This record gives sequence, C-alpha cells and structure tokens, in this order.
Amino acid sequence: MDSASQLKAFLIGIDTHQEPIIYMRDDCDVCRSEGFSARSRVRVTANRQSVIATLNVVHGDTVPEGYAGLSNIAMKRLGVSSGDPVSVHHAPVTESLSLVRRKVFGHELSQDELTKIVSDISEHKYSDLEIACFLSVCAGGRLTLNEITGLTRAMVASGERLHWEGAARVFDKHCVGGLPGNRTTPLVVAIVSAAGLVMPKTSSRAITSPAGTADTMEALTTVNLSLADLQRVVRKTGACLAWGGAINLSPADDLLIRIERALDLDGEGQLVASVLSKKLAAGSTHVVIDIPVGITAKVRSHEEADRLSFLFSEVGAACGLVVRCVLTDGSHPIGSGIGPVEEARDVIAVLQGRQEAPDDLKERALLLAAHVFDMADGCGIEEGQQKARDILESGRAWEQFRRITEEQGGLKQLGSARFRYRQLATDPGTILSVDNRRLARLAKLAGAPESPAAGLRLFANVGDTVAVGDSLYELLSDSTGERDYALAYIAGEAPIFTLQTES
Amino acid sequence: MDSASQLKAFLIGIDTHQEPIIYMRDDCDVCRSEGFSARSRVRVTANRQSVIATLNVVHGDTVPEGYAGLSNIAMKRLGVSSGDPVSVHHAPVTESLSLVRRKVFGHELSQDELTKIVSDISEHKYSDLEIACFLSVCAGGRLTLNEITGLTRAMVASGERLHWEGAARVFDKHCVGGLPGNRTTPLVVAIVSAAGLVMPKTSSRAITSPAGTADTMEALTTVNLSLADLQRVVRKTGACLAWGGAINLSPADDLLIRIERALDLDGEGQLVASVLSKKLAAGSTHVVIDIPVGITAKVRSHEEADRLSFLFSEVGAACGLVVRCVLTDGSHPIGSGIGPVEEARDVIAVLQGRQEAPDDLKERALLLAAHVFDMADGCGIEEGQQKARDILESGRAWEQFRRITEEQGGLKQLGSARFRYRQLATDPGTILSVDNRRLARLAKLAGAPESPAAGLRLFANVGDTVAVGDSLYELLSDSTGERDYALAYIAGEAPIFTLQTES
Repeated sequence: MDSASQLKAFLIGIDTHQEPIIYMRDDCDVCRSEGFSARSRVRVTANRQSVIATLNVVHGDTVPEGYAGLSNIAMKRLGVSSGDPVSVHHAPVTESLSLVRRKVFGHELSQDELTKIVSDISEHKYSDLEIACFLSVCAGGRLTLNEITGLTRAMVASGERLHWEGAARVFDKHCVGGLPGNRTTPLVVAIVSAAGLVMPKTSSRAITSPAGTADTMEALTTVNLSLADLQRVVRKTGACLAWGGAINLSPADDLLIRIERALDLDGEGQLVASVLSKKLAAGSTHVVIDIPVGITAKVRSHEEADRLSFLFSEVGAACGLVVRCVLTDGSHPIGSGIGPVEEARDVIAVLQGRQEAPDDLKERALLLAAHVFDMADGCGIEEGQQKARDILESGRAWEQFRRITEEQGGLKQLGSARFRYRQLATDPGTILSVDNRRLARLAKLAGAPESPAAGLRLFANVGDTVAVGDSLYELLSDSTGERDYALAYIAGEAPIFTLQTES
Repeated sequence: MDSASQLKAFLIGIDTHQEPIIYMRDDCDVCRSEGFSARSRVRVTANRQSVIATLNVVHGDTVPEGYAGLSNIAMKRLGVSSGDPVSVHHAPVTESLSLVRRKVFGHELSQDELTKIVSDISEHKYSDLEIACFLSVCAGGRLTLNEITGLTRAMVASGERLHWEGAARVFDKHCVGGLPGNRTTPLVVAIVSAAGLVMPKTSSRAITSPAGTADTMEALTTVNLSLADLQRVVRKTGACLAWGGAINLSPADDLLIRIERALDLDGEGQLVASVLSKKLAAGSTHVVIDIPVGITAKVRSHEEADRLSFLFSEVGAACGLVVRCVLTDGSHPIGSGIGPVEEARDVIAVLQGRQEAPDDLKERALLLAAHVFDMADGCGIEEGQQKARDILESGRAWEQFRRITEEQGGLKQLGSARFRYRQLATDPGTILSVDNRRLARLAKLAGAPESPAAGLRLFANVGDTVAVGDSLYELLSDSTGERDYALAYIAGEAPIFTLQTES
C-alpha cells in the first residue's frame, strides 16, 4: 500500500506562507488510487516527518510525472529536497474541528477544548480556511471571560516560555494600537531599564497597522535574536527590544495573526489572549497596557476601553499577571513619523533631546514609564514622571538605548524613501481633527511596513493653524506602484485633515 | 504606468477551483514596482476583462521571466492564452467587506447591505478566506429572519431567473438532507408531472453528503443542460431533472457552497436562503420541503425541525413562495443504495415496480407526492397518496421518467464499482439503530460522490433481525486507497449498526 502512494518531491518554488500546498498531476496514480480531488486534505510523509497539506491539482507538465510539487513551507517542514521520496495519503480527521463547530453554534468552549484547538493549530493541522472560521466566530465579542483565559493559557502552552533567573519582577509594556506613530515602547524600555528595572521586551510586527514595534526596531538594529542572544542581551543590559516571532513564543498566535491580517480582523478576545499570552511566555510579571481612545483609533469610546481594561486585568489576574491599563488620548497621531524608518527617526530624536523631537511622543512615553515606576515602587504618577524625565533629559536613556542596540548587533543608519510627495494646505485654518484610520491606511498603501522607509511624515497635527501652501504631510514610498496607489487614495477620498477655516 | 506593469500570461496549469491565483516571480519588476507581497490581492487585466486574484510568490524558474503564472480559473475568466499580455495592479478595496465586519460584530445587515455583499461575492471580489469569514459569522443561528429573507433575495438577484410561460403554478420539492439514500426527488417528479403538474426540477450536487440529486441523476442521464435545452425538456414533458449549477441560477450560492463544503459547515440561515433562492430563481411558486428528523439526521429534534419549518415558511412568504414543510422519520436510512449509482439503482427499481425495490423509499416518495397533490387541489393527503400510488403502480411514472430522460439525452446504463467488501453480522439480533452520519461518512470515504459507483448497498435496516453471517452492507469503491481508508474507518470505530442481541 505504501509503495503505491510513493512519489518524488519536486521543488515548485511557490511561497504559500504557512499553509503547505501539494501540487499533484491530474493523471497521477496516487491521486487516482487514493481518490483525491482538488482541495483534498492530505498527509505527506518523508523522513518520518509528516505535514497536512491542501491539494492543488495540476494539468500539464508544471510537475513532472512521478513527482509531487511541494510549496516552500511543505519542503521546509518535511526537510526534503527535490527527488527525495514522499508518500501521500488521506489526512486523518482533525477531531478538534468538531469543537470549532460547537463554537460556531454558540457553545462556550472549555479550557480543555481550547487547548486541543490551539494545539492542533500550532501543529499545523488546520487549513487557512479552518483558521479563518475559528477566528471569525471568536471575533466580535463572542469569547467569554473564561474562554479568553482558556485561550491565553492554551497559547502559552503551545510554545516556549522564558524564565528570568534572579529577577523577582519582570516588567513589560504594550500598546493595543490604532494610533499611527505612537512608538513609545523603545523609549519606555530605555527609561525604565536605565533605572534598573528588568524589561526584556519582545514585540510583534504590524498586524493591520503601518508598523509594529518590531518593524520599527528592525530599522535600527537586529531584532531577529536567538533565545541565547536575547538572554545574553538582557543579562548585560536588563532589557532588550527584540522580535518575539523569532523565538517561538506563542507560535499558535503567529499562525492566527497571519489570517487575522488577511481578513483585517482584530477581535477583542483574540487581542487580549494574543497580548497576554506573549507577555506570559516572555516571563513578565507586571504589564502596563496603553489603550489610546478616540473615534478614529482602534478603541473608539471610553466604554469600549473600560471593557478591554476589565478583560486585560481579569484574564491577567487569572493567569498570574499584574496588569495596569492606561487610557490615553487617541484623538490624533502621536509623533511625526509613520512607518518603520520614520518612527525610528522620532525615537532617536526624543532620546537625543533634539529640537525636532515630537513633544507629544516624548510626553506619552514619560507617562507610561511613570506608570511602570509606580507599579514597581508605588511612587505615584507625578513623581514617576519626574523620575522618567530626569533619566531621559540627562541622556541616560539614550546611553541605555545604545547599550541595548549595541548588544543586539549595533545601531543601523536609517535609510530614505525613493519617492516623496508633499501635501499642502489648500485653505487656511485650524486643524480640527485627523482621521487616524485613513492616515494609517495611506501609510500602508505607500508601502509600510513591507518597505521600511515608506510611510508618512507629518508637519501639522490637531490644534495647529496652517496657511495656504503650508505642508500638511509628506508621503514616502519606495515604488512607483505604491506611490501612485497612495496618491489615487488621497485624490479619491474626503480629506484626512479636517480644518476649521477662518471666516 | 501601465507598460511598467505589463507581463505575459503563463498557463501554469494549477486548478485552484473558483479562487484565481497569480504566481509571480520574487524578482519580477512588477512585484517590486507595485510593492506586492505574498497574499496581496491584485487586479489582473487583459482584453478589457479583469479578475481579482491572490498573489503567490514563486522562487526559481517555475514561471519564466517576464511572465505571470495564472491558475486555470484566472486564465478562463480573463479569456487569455499563454503569451497574451496581462497587466497587474493592486486590487481596489472591496467596500462590502466593511459590512461583513459589521456582521462579525453582531450588527444586523439590511437588505441593501446583503445585496452588496452577495453581489461582490458573485463578481468574484472575495477571497476564499473572506467568504469563509462571512459564512462562519452567518452560521450557528446568527442570521435573523429579516437577514435570511434579505440574503435569499440577494442570491436570486445575483443570477438568472426562469419564467414558465403558460404555467400559473410551478411546483418543486426539496429535501434538507442528512439521510443517506432517500432519493425520492426523481420519483416525485415523475409521479406529479405524469399527473400534469409542472415540475421543472433543478437540483444541486452533494454539499456534505455522499450524493445530491444531481449526482444521482447524472448516473442515469445528462444533467448538465443549457437553459434552452432545459426549457425544451419542460415544454415537452412538464418536468426535468437537471443540475441547477449549469444554468447560473443563484451563482453566489454555488460560490458559498464550495467553501461551506471545505469547512463542513451548513448553517440554518444559509440553508434556507440557499434552498429558497434556488426555487425562486427556478421560477417555482409552490414547494414541498422534506425535513427528516432523527438523532443522527441533519435535523436532530422536532424543536429544530419546527424552527426550520418556520423559517422556510416565513422567508418563502416574504418572497412570494408557498412553502409546505413535511417532517418525516429520519431515524434510519431510506432505500438500500447510498452513493450516486446505487441510489439510481433503487429509483429505477421503484419506478419499474421490481421485487427488490426498497419499500421505504417508495412509500416516502408517495407521501411527498401526496403533499404536492394536496397543495395543488386540496385533495387531502390520503387521496393524494392513492392517486400517487395509482400513477406509480400503473407504470405511468416510469413511462414519464423515460420521457424526461429521453429528452435530456437518453437513459444511461449503470456502472459497477471495482472493489466490494461485504460486512457480515458477527452476532445475532435485531437492529436497534443505524448511525446515519457515520454511514454517510463511510460512503464518502469509499469515494462517493466523486466516484459515482462508490458508496454502500444495505442489506439490513432498523427493525430487521439478523443471524451470524448475514450481510449487513456492502462497501463499494473504485480505488484501493479509498477502499483501504473506508475499511480503516470501519475497523477503528464503534459499529454503525447497533443490535439488540438475543439473550
């Protein structure tokens, strides 16, 4: 039976992200004898490794006779090269899919059931469509508090968990996002670790925004650290600013985020579980969470922010994590740069105390650092802010930031985008509001974060008065296609800045 | 700008079902200048046609330089051949996706919003992941009565709508499924059209079952009729037994069903909208719906059946359709054959009045035909049953069935499966129950409906007394892989038949 289902692997070279695809000829004996049809879920085995793959049927000679084409991720997970023998059979039934169907029908899932689902997802037993189904029925407030706690624990259990010997308390900081710019994390890490607190920061890349902290830090240094390197950096400096995805913290979350991104879906329960599972896996004990609130931010109302704070605190407590949520003003972008390189530029300017440093970014970072200090020693927010300000303005935060980036592989020079387009004010007046969502979308259309230098640089923000011909922002892109696409978006839509014109 | 994004089409030969995929080289200028990345949604244009496709990035020489590989459906929809020029740009934003996100967050969708979503789906603007998201949040009882009505109307509006001139009333019949065998439709159509009622039956293929009526009828005649042929057959015989998918009735539904199948998801609201939209599009005015109720049928309880009857009747009435639901015994399979060819065998046996004809199938068909007669002239169920029995037992139904199939292209000979395995009783006793779901799954594992001759033939059913060595059923398959997989399923699970053994 096995010899009959034997084929040779063929490197077809197609990148299908995390979902393995197998390309089999329509006239292939194995297809016929196993009774496969397009989109069959099959088990491909080689070297005692196996992966579950989705079948695409191929007509013609793209795949040679006697071979099965494998997408890059399938080749990689099986550890095979072209010509190596592989066998292909029907995939076994993924039992936990019946639990997903229970959730579709509104049943609450138990810890045990969520663990089974997350474990099967992290073992790559779900197709992308099946992950999309699971995420969709968990989004929109459909997870109970118990389910979010269960999902958090299940995601922690699916990956590595860091331990920081000698550190009784390990601090962390996170922003739920939705505000373009707002790159406070590198500043907070530098300030609080300069004061001696331990803050091994692992960040994610952008899900639906123009940049995540890992994208921004990658413009400045190496973020793709091995576990050993990360531990060395933290041992030496008390902190790090690394990409969490490189060290297999909560791998199920990475698989889920990929599909959330494709669906532009970022559900509340999923968000809480994703954030807290990463913090728990990173070995944190105390976390400050920044929740910007504004009608065009991710969190639109104080009611929504309170709900999210409640979930973060309760789920955190259930998992042994002290969580403090800080509601901040999300009515306008923070900082002047949007996109990895431009945000990095702002971070450096604030650390170096340069004149062009955006004041709102600096003050937001000082506030969040103050909350970390208050969590640590109960000093109160005002005293915490003063302490943070002293560290930043004395240059100690910049010095600490340089030590961290030095340990991570050195500070990089920032690049520049190839194409620039400056948007000017066509009327005089005072800026009443800025649409954060559309600003973020514009930066993404311009190419951020895939093109690190792409994005926006703002020259005006809410409350500023502008004259005709004053610069509002500069659009930065690295390809003509993206530039043109972003320009078409500007031309076709209502203005991103709303002005009160002088009467 | 356009010349820069110009490539030549390359027939890569990959069958990606309904979702167009474009395979572009990682070193392709267009990829770079447009800023595409893996899984980007792009618009491919040629001959003034364009399709939205999902990008797969290709490394190496599977796609030659200067070319873009297109999956079969992309080539077909664009009407291009290898070497024809195509241009590739970012896909425009699909506005109705924001409405899907509203549904994710629990908002009720209006008629107008559902029409936009369904229209975009039928114009192939949704990726498979996006369709999966929409279906998942509509499943599990999450559609209100108004939404189901809105979805039904939107699906009718997305495709062709038939009109039957001269026929004031047009009858139809549907079974919600879940019961293996139970192929009453060809019998009901033959009986009621022999009595002079108009019944232009368009059926679907299997979604999650071992056969749909269209699959079974395809074993007997041509079901892939053009609209003109279908109208001719109905004009001559008052009826037809065709595949609905061939004539673009409710094309959105076909796209949705494909993803429902991959997710093994068959939501209540989706079911009602799918069934009624097909009936409305087929020009029906009166529909009898068979709802088998049983703990291992699709509808498990009378409560659930009542809910479904309510939805069918209300949505039907809102759309101008008279619907009667008939709740039937769904505790055991109906008929002896499961799978296209074996079910066709039973249908012919009943029509010809052969000794081996399954009595339960015959009686179920007579009951449903009686309900159609009662809807037509208020004769009452008993008189309707007698009328149906007379037509069947006199041979007029068989004569009418032959006329219909003759007009559709002639009656085919039934084939036979290559591999047979007979399951014998290992204990004596009376059969207490049969698990319909596991029986259906077994028939599917054996290869039904993709292999028409695959499936099962039952030799015993609930209530029968068997001795050791009596045949319970025969497993039929056309490939060794499917046979072995089905046998492994039988070996590994609890028995499908539950016996009360003699004490």
